[in-house]
Amino acid sequence: MTDQARPATPLLDRIGGPADLRVLPDRDLKRLADELRAETIWAVSQTGGHLGAGLGVVELTVAIHAVFNTPRDKLIWDVSHQCYPHKILTGRRDRMRTIRQKDGLSGFTKRTESIYDPFGAAHSSTSISAALGFAMGRELGADDVGDAIAVIGDGALSGGMAYEAMNHAGHLKKRLIVILNDNEMSIAPPVGAMSSYLSSLYAGAPFQEFKAAAKGAVGFLPPPFQEGARRAKEMLKGITVGGTLFEELGFSYVGPIDGHDMESLLQVLRTVKVRADGPILIHAITQKGKGFAEHRADRGHATGKFDPATGEQKKAKSNAPSYTKVFAQSLIQEAAEDDKIVAITAAMPDGTGLNLFAERFPARCFDVGIAEQHGVTFCAGLAAAGMKPFAAIYSTFLQRGYDQVVHDVALQNLPVRFAIDRAGLVGADGATHAGSFDVAYLSNLPNFTVMAAANEAELRHMVATAAAHDSGPIAFRFPRGEGVGCEMPERGVPLEIGKGRIVHEGAQVAILSFGARLVEVEEARERLMARGIEPTVADARFSKPLDRDLILDLAARHEALITIEEGAIGGFGSHVAQLLAEEGVFDTGLCYRSMVLPDAFIDQAGPREMYAAAGLNVEDIEAKVLSVLGVQVLSKRA
Amino acid sequence: MTDQARPATPLLDRIGGPADLRVLPDRDLKRLADELRAETIWAVSQTGGHLGAGLGVVELTVAIHAVFNTPRDKLIWDVSHQCYPHKILTGRRDRMRTIRQKDGLSGFTKRTESIYDPFGAAHSSTSISAALGFAMGRELGADDVGDAIAVIGDGALSGGMAYEAMNHAGHLKKRLIVILNDNEMSIAPPVGAMSSYLSSLYAGAPFQEFKAAAKGAVGFLPPPFQEGARRAKEMLKGITVGGTLFEELGFSYVGPIDGHDMESLLQVLRTVKVRADGPILIHAITQKGKGFAEHRADRGHATGKFDPATGEQKKAKSNAPSYTKVFAQSLIQEAAEDDKIVAITAAMPDGTGLNLFAERFPARCFDVGIAEQHGVTFCAGLAAAGMKPFAAIYSTFLQRGYDQVVHDVALQNLPVRFAIDRAGLVGADGATHAGSFDVAYLSNLPNFTVMAAANEAELRHMVATAAAHDSGPIAFRFPRGEGVGCEMPERGVPLEIGKGRIVHEGAQVAILSFGARLVEVEEARERLMARGIEPTVADARFSKPLDRDLILDLAARHEALITIEEGAIGGFGSHVAQLLAEEGVFDTGLCYRSMVLPDAFIDQAGPREMYAAAGLNVEDIEAKVLSVLGVQVLSKRA
Repeated sequence: MTDQARPATPLLDRIGGPADLRVLPDRDLKRLADELRAETIWAVSQTGGHLGAGLGVVELTVAIHAVFNTPRDKLIWDVSHQCYPHKILTGRRDRMRTIRQKDGLSGFTKRTESIYDPFGAAHSSTSISAALGFAMGRELGADDVGDAIAVIGDGALSGGMAYEAMNHAGHLKKRLIVILNDNEMSIAPPVGAMSSYLSSLYAGAPFQEFKAAAKGAVGFLPPPFQEGARRAKEMLKGITVGGTLFEELGFSYVGPIDGHDMESLLQVLRTVKVRADGPILIHAITQKGKGFAEHRADRGHATGKFDPATGEQKKAKSNAPSYTKVFAQSLIQEAAEDDKIVAITAAMPDGTGLNLFAERFPARCFDVGIAEQHGVTFCAGLAAAGMKPFAAIYSTFLQRGYDQVVHDVALQNLPVRFAIDRAGLVGADGATHAGSFDVAYLSNLPNFTVMAAANEAELRHMVATAAAHDSGPIAFRFPRGEGVGCEMPERGVPLEIGKGRIVHEGAQVAILSFGARLVEVEEARERLMARGIEPTVADARFSKPLDRDLILDLAARHEALITIEEGAIGGFGSHVAQLLAEEGVFDTGLCYRSMVLPDAFIDQAGPREMYAAAGLNVEDIEAKVLSVLGVQVLSKRA
Repeated sequence: MTDQARPATPLLDRIGGPADLRVLPDRDLKRLADELRAETIWAVSQTGGHLGAGLGVVELTVAIHAVFNTPRDKLIWDVSHQCYPHKILTGRRDRMRTIRQKDGLSGFTKRTESIYDPFGAAHSSTSISAALGFAMGRELGADDVGDAIAVIGDGALSGGMAYEAMNHAGHLKKRLIVILNDNEMSIAPPVGAMSSYLSSLYAGAPFQEFKAAAKGAVGFLPPPFQEGARRAKEMLKGITVGGTLFEELGFSYVGPIDGHDMESLLQVLRTVKVRADGPILIHAITQKGKGFAEHRADRGHATGKFDPATGEQKKAKSNAPSYTKVFAQSLIQEAAEDDKIVAITAAMPDGTGLNLFAERFPARCFDVGIAEQHGVTFCAGLAAAGMKPFAAIYSTFLQRGYDQVVHDVALQNLPVRFAIDRAGLVGADGATHAGSFDVAYLSNLPNFTVMAAANEAELRHMVATAAAHDSGPIAFRFPRGEGVGCEMPERGVPLEIGKGRIVHEGAQVAILSFGARLVEVEEARERLMARGIEPTVADARFSKPLDRDLILDLAARHEALITIEEGAIGGFGSHVAQLLAEEGVFDTGLCYRSMVLPDAFIDQAGPREMYAAAGLNVEDIEAKVLSVLGVQVLSKRA
């Protein structure tokens, strides 16, 4: 594929930023949107990335920038994987080929990247809260803040914080614009009563009728201010066919409108801009993947590089099964023999592998929506009822349910099983999706058992361990991506709780790995052996309870002990240090080092590059061993 | 006050448990409720505790236990400070005098305390999630699970997870009973559009009309099953005057009903029990503090011991201002000179002292409802708009906003100020309210600055430090209760970021305190000096960034270094250990110990008793110093 496949975009080529777009006549804005859609498809075909969400908001993106005065008006994209067209329009078109790559554009909005990104996102349902913050800042005299506009998807509305924010906004009654981008899709089809409710709003209201009403009602606007605010509200009401629920929360409701009809969008946004005197929700119906992937099951949510003509993806062949798939298959094995096992996902059935579980055991699989708080306590309730719930949640998203983990699970010692996918650094999604903190924030909770899988075989055993562990909460973490290609056991066998294993016996220095850095540790050992150094290597398996005997034995038998984990300080290494201190091992001297993620958010890159930036790669392990042994070497990495 | 003031309760005296109550005729249930109210008032007058919420649900408590088959039917009280009448009816009457005391009854529901407490609570808004867990467990064949009944207050409905749970329950469509106990009160008057909406539901519907309708509609029930389920739903609908919002979320809505009218309650609950075939919400209007404190501003939310005849409280005189008050006054001082300062509470204006701030600066104070997730991101939005938000949230409740702290605040390096009250162990509220984890879960976040106040003067300086610190997020924690009575500076002066202070120079051993254990450390020092040991004492002030120079200097100049903090492992001590390890201090030996909260949830008691159980009191510090110095002493505490 070459630049020759690139679509012609004469109008878009003249747009350096939103100001250029505001001088265009309305008929050109429609053409611009078509070019922007073609450009977005082409750009993502070159790099891979999130496509479907952006294609659904092309017209909306153009219309908002045309009507509102960005960047003074603050446009906040919820989750923001739909921001590619926005990035193209806001001066970042020439860098789209770098998206989600090292030193390139982020796949999400990002404050440090552009003044047109007033608030970064990546986790769901934050946009109304942030927009309300801007709006109240404006009311209190903050400099250079105009309107605050949140664009939020219907999937994100299942998150409780969106409701909390609407409840507060409806109470404060200040001008705030929320655009509900309703594409009837989350990453998967959305679940929940809200989703059914939204469908009911436009089921009986064909857009044709709405469009006619809209033209009649707002056709004579602008010029603005020719009518009083009350009259404008009546007009908006007149073009509205539902929305009671939002009105009951204190919002004016406008819609539903066709989010791909530029004429309607411009009319409604202009009317709202002139007339809104409180919180207002504009309900726009869009198609995820519009113009390219609207007929695919996932609407082109995320894709690798592809041929823009055929849509065919270029996928690298994988050598080993993904950790996610191993988790799912292992859980299915356990569930086939224990009908108390149930599985819970928070709107990520595909990402967590639970789509496979749901195929096999549909009644025992629950998608709770983007609702980690509820999801965790729902699991606690299931456990209290005697079930064996597995909560499959990415490390970064489990942060959403932290209080529930503490208050409902740990404190009550309920046997909820946490399958923590995407532990550690995750690659292209970058810092917002890094699973950095779970080891720390779980390992200091009383009653918890915490494990990390060194490879996919270990993961299978840990699923079995969790299934068998019915005396309290237990978590096991595993990284994104492919396993290491090790031999797989037919079935998982429960591990002894709190026991690690020696992988290689050696001398002088012991490296105690917690989790999937074990491969790098072993590679570092190979290199060190070429220098005549033969470290002992052990796999801790558990950060809680610690394997005291193993750790104290390693400390006693070696000059130096190094721990390594794919997590921030406060986790495994901190627990080991506490043990060594309490046991008096430091009193007489032990060269101890703990390799953890550094005190920085690490931007997106390949996982290997990210771990290099974190100082946790093979070279870093090798260098650490050499340094604790006092071996002076010339750095290979200057 | 003696037992002679105890009310006569002949009917209640015959109730050993809910089964006894189910054989009573309806007219006796009304009398029983009256006796239960008198007994509740008397019991709390003897001990202090949560009163108002319990008085509001006396009739509801009797009616639920009379109609439903507890403990097989699972009754889950949201927050559960309204559970005192429930405890009296479920076999715990004779232990009510021990409530909230060491080794006594918990002030909340607790699974380990009674089979009638199927799910513990204390944090808000969890009950619907837990009840749905039980309900789905029942559907999947869990043993001995009947109906699941959540009783949730209108204040708790402002929490997003309640909405998440309703959204999921409405989707699943299984039988689930939610009783909305609407007393128009949270701890403070509730805020938010939902609250206004609930008021609108009964504003136009006097109970008289409802009662007449109810009698007509359900008067001929039981016997059950004489009508089809569809007919029953119609009847319920016929006695309903609103509730569209809940219906849009997939719930059947019944109400509003008078929550103190036993006849109505029994009729409605019996009808629901027989007929409900999906999620149903019963909207009961109650008065918080009914029969005793309904005319007080706080409706008798929480009280000390009092005279049951006059209501007069017996309060101990305090010697020093509370930390909460010092925080509020200091923030008002700063805000008087900087109009960018705003303050945010999540439904705790009194508890956080922000009621004082709101009196002075009403437009700059926001009560977001029980909505920590939204509250934190709202602050992030305010900070992005150039304001200086102070989020005043208890340590235990900040867990609710953890992902927002990570993703919206730390990652974007936005200068949100976190005023973390109730840090450490909190006394009578027990384990559910302990502020144990914040040092750990904040100190490993990049960009964060984390402080702990050693006394109320330090707190004042830390408020000033936070106000002045505009380059990133900053948190300061302080304990519940009175300060130490130290001299107060007129105004706070910003501290140098990352610098601690030597409090006493000494020799041999250094004790480095982070936070309010400093008083105990100084007392331990006094005791040790009587033995001829003169420890150096330092106040770290910052767990992040660490005062490297101070720590390395203390390590170099002493045989032993002990850190102490009012928090779990993973926090200050872990960061110190990491520094000492990386700097090679352990290589040649340092007797280092980190005193942290133990790996256990500590039940309620006096704060001093709880810290004794935690091993962090004066005696423990003294013993730790003696042990690291190798001094053999007979324990004074055997």
